[in-house]
Amino acid sequence: MPIVQIDMLEGRTVEQRRELVKRVTEAISETANCPQSAVSIIIREMTTTHLGQGGKLRADS
Amino acid sequence: MPIVQIDMLEGRTVEQRRELVKRVTEAISETANCPQSAVSIIIREMTTTHLGQGGKLRADS
Amino acid sequence: MPIVQIDMLEGRTVEQRRELVKRVTEAISETANCPQSAVSIIIREMTTTHLGQGGKLRADS
Amino acid sequence: MPIVQIDMLEGRTVEQRRELVKRVTEAISETANCPQSAVSIIIREMTTTHLGQGGKLRADS
Amino acid sequence: MPIVQIDMLEGRTVEQRRELVKRVTEAISETANCPQSAVSIIIREMTTTHLGQGGKLRADS
Amino acid sequence: MPIVQIDMLEGRTVEQRRELVKRVTEAISETANCPQSAVSIIIREMTTTHLGQGGKLRADS
Repeated sequence: MPIVQIDMLEGRTVEQRRELVKRVTEAISETANCPQSAVSIIIREMTTTHLGQGGKLRADS
Repeated sequence: MPIVQIDMLEGRTVEQRRELVKRVTEAISETANCPQSAVSIIIREMTTTHLGQGGKLRADS
Repeated sequence: MPIVQIDMLEGRTVEQRRELVKRVTEAISETANCPQSAVSIIIREMTTTHLGQGGKLRADS
Repeated sequence: MPIVQIDMLEGRTVEQRRELVKRVTEAISETANCPQSAVSIIIREMTTTHLGQGGKLRADS
Repeated sequence: MPIVQIDMLEGRTVEQRRELVKRVTEAISETANCPQSAVSIIIREMTTTHLGQGGKLRADS
Repeated sequence: MPIVQIDMLEGRTVEQRRELVKRVTEAISETANCPQSAVSIIIREMTTTHLGQGGKLRADS
């Protein structure tokens, strides 16, 4: 009963999220050997001033 | 010192979140045997195009 | 389709977790107005050297 | 820079996790249009007494 | 390869988040003995009606 | 009331986690302008076969 959380920068379209959910669900179902119906995915989006990498805001990189 | 994260579809009222926090805190305090003051709850809301189940966006189901 | 994550100190029994899942699910179902079958709960346990509060490990408090 | 968290029941082999990481990374890279090197995945495993669904521990279902 | 998630009340400025990312990254790098480039930080903000403590919404405390 | 979650590879000592909690709490308190007592930190450790980066298990990199 995999529960997936994906945090990513904002800017993808609904169509991209639709494809992402389809493809990630297939990937997990096939490799973890569970039905697709058991996979839940939460997508969270953030701005470049809410992500830090290497000590800097992504907005400043 | 339970820390609770709840991800759910948007659309509940403040009054519903108020009741949810009250009731979930009581439930955890009584079953985990800790003071209510020790329970923190974060509620996050998402749209139906940010939740995937069974390989589909909730918006498409 | 609420997804709940609970991080807490280790030490509760299976029976306590069973009651916690039952009670928290009821609380969310009744206040967020969704079927109990839609509620998933993940419980994670940690030691007192994996929790910090007020700048100190819980083990040192 | 997607960051992925997957909570699932214990019991998959290292080889299954290896395939899962490969496939999920490809799926996200291709649909979100980002390099594979930007994708991080955390896999967490739990027992059937740490997962609740529909008000019951998975162990009791 | 520490991945850090920080959930906090909204209201900090970009400059505060910039300093927070810089300082938290330094703190982790120096104590966990890893390069700063390996540290990723996600900052999520919430309203006072999305945080519960001691059974009450923060907005009501 | 910042709540911090840190996922990192296993292998740090309790003393390192103690210093990490102290330093991260100071960093957040000073930059977000909140009391140290309001900061909670959860540290989770994982093996190199539970972390994926760039499509590979960390164990294989």
